[in-house]
Amino acid sequence: MSHNSFGHMFRVTTWGESHGPAIGCVVDGCPPLLPLTETDIQVFMEKRKPGQSRFTTQRREPDEVKILSGVMVDEDGVQKTTGTPISLMVENTDQRSKDYSEIKDRFRPGHADFTYDAKYGIRDYRGGGRSSARETAMRVAAGAVARKVLDGVTIRAALVQVGPHEIDRSNWDWNQVDQNPFFAPDEKAAAYWADYLDRVRKAGSSVGAVIEVVAEGVPVGLGAPIYGKLDTDLSAAMMSINAVKGVEIGNGFEAARLSGEENADEIRIGEDGKPVFLTNNAGGVLGGISNGDPLVVRFAVKPTSSILTERKSITRTGEEIDVMTKGRHDPCVGIRAVPVGEAMMACVLADHFIRHRAQIG
Amino acid sequence: MSHNSFGHMFRVTTWGESHGPAIGCVVDGCPPLLPLTETDIQVFMEKRKPGQSRFTTQRREPDEVKILSGVMVDEDGVQKTTGTPISLMVENTDQRSKDYSEIKDRFRPGHADFTYDAKYGIRDYRGGGRSSARETAMRVAAGAVARKVLDGVTIRAALVQVGPHEIDRSNWDWNQVDQNPFFAPDEKAAAYWADYLDRVRKAGSSVGAVIEVVAEGVPVGLGAPIYGKLDTDLSAAMMSINAVKGVEIGNGFEAARLSGEENADEIRIGEDGKPVFLTNNAGGVLGGISNGDPLVVRFAVKPTSSILTERKSITRTGEEIDVMTKGRHDPCVGIRAVPVGEAMMACVLADHFIRHRAQIG
Amino acid sequence: MSHNSFGHMFRVTTWGESHGPAIGCVVDGCPPLLPLTETDIQVFMEKRKPGQSRFTTQRREPDEVKILSGVMVDEDGVQKTTGTPISLMVENTDQRSKDYSEIKDRFRPGHADFTYDAKYGIRDYRGGGRSSARETAMRVAAGAVARKVLDGVTIRAALVQVGPHEIDRSNWDWNQVDQNPFFAPDEKAAAYWADYLDRVRKAGSSVGAVIEVVAEGVPVGLGAPIYGKLDTDLSAAMMSINAVKGVEIGNGFEAARLSGEENADEIRIGEDGKPVFLTNNAGGVLGGISNGDPLVVRFAVKPTSSILTERKSITRTGEEIDVMTKGRHDPCVGIRAVPVGEAMMACVLADHFIRHRAQIG
Amino acid sequence: MSHNSFGHMFRVTTWGESHGPAIGCVVDGCPPLLPLTETDIQVFMEKRKPGQSRFTTQRREPDEVKILSGVMVDEDGVQKTTGTPISLMVENTDQRSKDYSEIKDRFRPGHADFTYDAKYGIRDYRGGGRSSARETAMRVAAGAVARKVLDGVTIRAALVQVGPHEIDRSNWDWNQVDQNPFFAPDEKAAAYWADYLDRVRKAGSSVGAVIEVVAEGVPVGLGAPIYGKLDTDLSAAMMSINAVKGVEIGNGFEAARLSGEENADEIRIGEDGKPVFLTNNAGGVLGGISNGDPLVVRFAVKPTSSILTERKSITRTGEEIDVMTKGRHDPCVGIRAVPVGEAMMACVLADHFIRHRAQIG
Repeated sequence: MSHNSFGHMFRVTTWGESHGPAIGCVVDGCPPLLPLTETDIQVFMEKRKPGQSRFTTQRREPDEVKILSGVMVDEDGVQKTTGTPISLMVENTDQRSKDYSEIKDRFRPGHADFTYDAKYGIRDYRGGGRSSARETAMRVAAGAVARKVLDGVTIRAALVQVGPHEIDRSNWDWNQVDQNPFFAPDEKAAAYWADYLDRVRKAGSSVGAVIEVVAEGVPVGLGAPIYGKLDTDLSAAMMSINAVKGVEIGNGFEAARLSGEENADEIRIGEDGKPVFLTNNAGGVLGGISNGDPLVVRFAVKPTSSILTERKSITRTGEEIDVMTKGRHDPCVGIRAVPVGEAMMACVLADHFIRHRAQIG
Repeated sequence: MSHNSFGHMFRVTTWGESHGPAIGCVVDGCPPLLPLTETDIQVFMEKRKPGQSRFTTQRREPDEVKILSGVMVDEDGVQKTTGTPISLMVENTDQRSKDYSEIKDRFRPGHADFTYDAKYGIRDYRGGGRSSARETAMRVAAGAVARKVLDGVTIRAALVQVGPHEIDRSNWDWNQVDQNPFFAPDEKAAAYWADYLDRVRKAGSSVGAVIEVVAEGVPVGLGAPIYGKLDTDLSAAMMSINAVKGVEIGNGFEAARLSGEENADEIRIGEDGKPVFLTNNAGGVLGGISNGDPLVVRFAVKPTSSILTERKSITRTGEEIDVMTKGRHDPCVGIRAVPVGEAMMACVLADHFIRHRAQIG
Repeated sequence: MSHNSFGHMFRVTTWGESHGPAIGCVVDGCPPLLPLTETDIQVFMEKRKPGQSRFTTQRREPDEVKILSGVMVDEDGVQKTTGTPISLMVENTDQRSKDYSEIKDRFRPGHADFTYDAKYGIRDYRGGGRSSARETAMRVAAGAVARKVLDGVTIRAALVQVGPHEIDRSNWDWNQVDQNPFFAPDEKAAAYWADYLDRVRKAGSSVGAVIEVVAEGVPVGLGAPIYGKLDTDLSAAMMSINAVKGVEIGNGFEAARLSGEENADEIRIGEDGKPVFLTNNAGGVLGGISNGDPLVVRFAVKPTSSILTERKSITRTGEEIDVMTKGRHDPCVGIRAVPVGEAMMACVLADHFIRHRAQIG
Repeated sequence: MSHNSFGHMFRVTTWGESHGPAIGCVVDGCPPLLPLTETDIQVFMEKRKPGQSRFTTQRREPDEVKILSGVMVDEDGVQKTTGTPISLMVENTDQRSKDYSEIKDRFRPGHADFTYDAKYGIRDYRGGGRSSARETAMRVAAGAVARKVLDGVTIRAALVQVGPHEIDRSNWDWNQVDQNPFFAPDEKAAAYWADYLDRVRKAGSSVGAVIEVVAEGVPVGLGAPIYGKLDTDLSAAMMSINAVKGVEIGNGFEAARLSGEENADEIRIGEDGKPVFLTNNAGGVLGGISNGDPLVVRFAVKPTSSILTERKSITRTGEEIDVMTKGRHDPCVGIRAVPVGEAMMACVLADHFIRHRAQIG
């Protein structure tokens, strides 16, 4: 039982608090002989890193990842994994030496302050401590390692809804995702959201979002019934991300509205002699096992709980107060959840990919 | 790593196929000294049992559960748990000796036939084998044991949507749930659904559904960050149920549409001197830890894949065919998922309840 | 965390008490397509079964194993594993309806009575309940399934010491093992032990024993550093058997007495071009990973705690008493531990064999 | 499944290679509110640190441990655990920039070189890489944290045999353990060993050893049948230490020689009204559960495999060679295994202590 680990054969353990000296993770179970450098990981760190646009927190963190173990330069000068645990670390550099006394004894509504305090009797209140979204940096680092395991698999994510504003799916263009600060696959939506989020940000408010993660090239057979289903693990992985309140696979909640005729994915034999599903309502999973179609997962992120409007709350000692959260925050924390969602997909797939090699998992 | 187990300290392992001699489960980690009889479990089996109305499969199974280990009659004549594993078994009695050759080599669209075959190279095709919803009977049995651990906690579930037809939440009445064959908390919805599902059933079609599970009286502090969150485990538990395609906690996907002001649950001190949340958008969980408010989980079930309309498919050997699934099936498998959802909630809570006793989990 | 399970990918969960209706196990993670019948398992049950000679308990149990799930007869009429959990059950038939009130409230020295009672506040006192060596029947059943996974591996065990009397290793003959009631690989030792144990038995006394388990044909590479070492898992597996107090690998405790020069296993290239170890002091494991040499494990079993001589003890309520254990007992419980040791070796190897397929475990 | 982790609720994951930039561990599941500073840990690091006498390797490592997460200074200025993962790191400082080409392609007999290479196809040959005993530094660090959980428990270890030379148990004096470079509880043995090991060292040879670990003040009830037994976990913990080849509990292998009358620990009621065992042949465990008596575990360490005498071996490419291991090595690696054995005992007990709080584990 591990409160700070996930995965079974590709197993990630994260540690660290928002304002401690560093954060890090240990990736255990990565197969040997995969080329891996810090640059391979840094590429993904850059996507999640704060302070890259006015729509995310202005905290400045270079998020430079260091590999402390688990790799070795081989005879050809290529640094490769050795099969031993890979320890990754990022030093925290922008922990402002501000006075935290203001939130030290106050429970910020929507945050984990109240429950951490109730459970542990102590908590690192500086920047949310362990419950800060800063922890997700290490998921992204682990996800970059996971991608090395997944040769031939493409994992991408996009923001598909901000507040009540959804993208127009007929405009979907993966090439757009890196062209705007929202990871939007729809140019027009991105433009609209920029305007909308500026208003939200200036009002000191926040909004929620929906992220869609898609994995293509997934081999048939990943996942294991009954409690090791691929969708079960994906669901848990996404739900474990800060602020996530809902997860769906393929048609998701929409499937409840459909008839069996509408929802079934019919099968034919393709030109290459292999089975082809004519639709992908299932989102790539049947009975918990991948069917070769793209894996499609969506998750909903609640609005950032840190807002400038005062909300009713209490102190540790039970006084009624009004709380307003100043400081550097994301008006829509869902934006930076996009690379995190990708990373979680990668980690789950790497785990099941390795398990599947043994045929049983 | 266990493909057929879930939970950590309250750990359930299920076994058995739809048409084998029996199905069963082992509940490991149940605390000692809890009164437990077969009748305590049977009550819940009755709720899930097939053939109780014309809206569920006509397979006739008494689903009589036997306790094979883990209990002992004490000096006062009360049968109690002993802390050793509790083995539960239900014999299958209505495995019709029909000819299965028709589906033996055919992949039924929407079912796990194709993926099981691709992964294992062999599958028990009789009634879906291991992938049959029959397995959920043992979840219900385990859930009945879990409830014994949860003194003071009330766990209830209701069907809130059938196909596109939702209940009217202003009519919500828990007392109605046992008064209709749908576990509907809304009398009018039940009447409408009866009519609607009759049409679906007669057409040989099927529809999806949404179930809501609510736990009241949950102590503050259950759940453990970061990867042992209560909502993470609830999400995985529900997603592991057959045909489930989406899960949400509290406001769920709706939270994406809200502002931080709308979504935050404000806190005051109640008359009893304890913290009170003025709303429950969070669904009872903050930072992965229960906050004392009702836990609210919803999940979406896809329409039953077995329908009388022909669908395009292929055989094991790659021939293109049309498949129609005759036999005894639920027109809306979501109905019988209601007690299963309750059971999964109970098992997850029992697990976290025991973990929390040690303060750390 | 599972108190009643062992193994990771080949995972065995046992349940049942000595005098309950049945005992059983669930084998999860067995690969598909392996031929498996009840007869395959029964062969090994017969070796452990009580009442086969005057040197073991006279309890009469047919120990007939039933397969309740996880197998399917294929098109050629061969029953094979399907990759789903294999549930095995043995009904208890010789639970004498005797009056247990005598031991109900008394703690038998050397038994688990005191500690079970202290931990759980309740215990099944009938025949030792869960702590009875009867549980090991299911290990033997699981071991028979494990052997199916281990094509080309030969697993054998022998009794090498009874009380202070060791075999003469220069007489070692595996063919003798099935020719005497002790699984002795030395004909003369068997003859001597028969005489010796008759005296022990008639005196109502008991003695300890040492068992040696050897696996030949083990592929190079099984086991994973640092905490998944093959010898670590073997050690735990043997120590979990009732009454075991010591475990050693290869030279074991003798290695402490040697110099580095004596203990190192030198390596040459054999006629087949493959590495050959000139000695096997290591017992087949280097750095926790199998080196291709025979795996050699020994474990020590303490004398049966049930004896006819009175011993000082106390009751549940703290009265000082003298306890004598009547009933049907093994004068040397180490004898029946021989097939159990083999089974545990098989289960550990099957687990690591499957893990190794994924290269990392 | 975790190759580099051990424990369930108090869970330790280690990482790092002998000659990488650092080694470290993550302690997950440590209860909150325990005072913990780097000094608390450093005390134990000092005991295991190399280069402290001429009888251990001359590698110079300050082994300065840093706490990177999981603690917080409370209002009284006391640094305490918070219930979040504790990340510990030690930088490697004395990785000599020597030429490793000599051992790069050679398999040193007795070492893990051959098996790591066979399993992973790549290995960090510098100083043994991951298989180096350097990893045990982090076990000692984790053990220091574990001791914080074990209020009232005293854990001590001693060297009781070096090569064939055992201590005289009638001389046993715990106060002597810190007075000599061997952790010997017998002054005379220490003097003899000094002389003996000087000869071994000068000859470039090595010898094995036996360590005894004793825990006093252990509460009744730790450990869980059947596969979560306290002695099972202790056995695995000790066997996972580098070079360990045998483990025994209480009487251990000697128990095999005894009769039931000799081996049974009789019970009386002590002056304080509590049960007292008149002897401790069991070593503090009955049926896998602690009985309140001192836990006694012994383990055997093989002689250091690095010796100056040439041994036959092969290269990676299959050439037959003679290998001699130069460099800085312990003539008796068993000496520094003493604090490691203590640490493993502490970690296992902390794990079971926390599990036991939940009554079931």
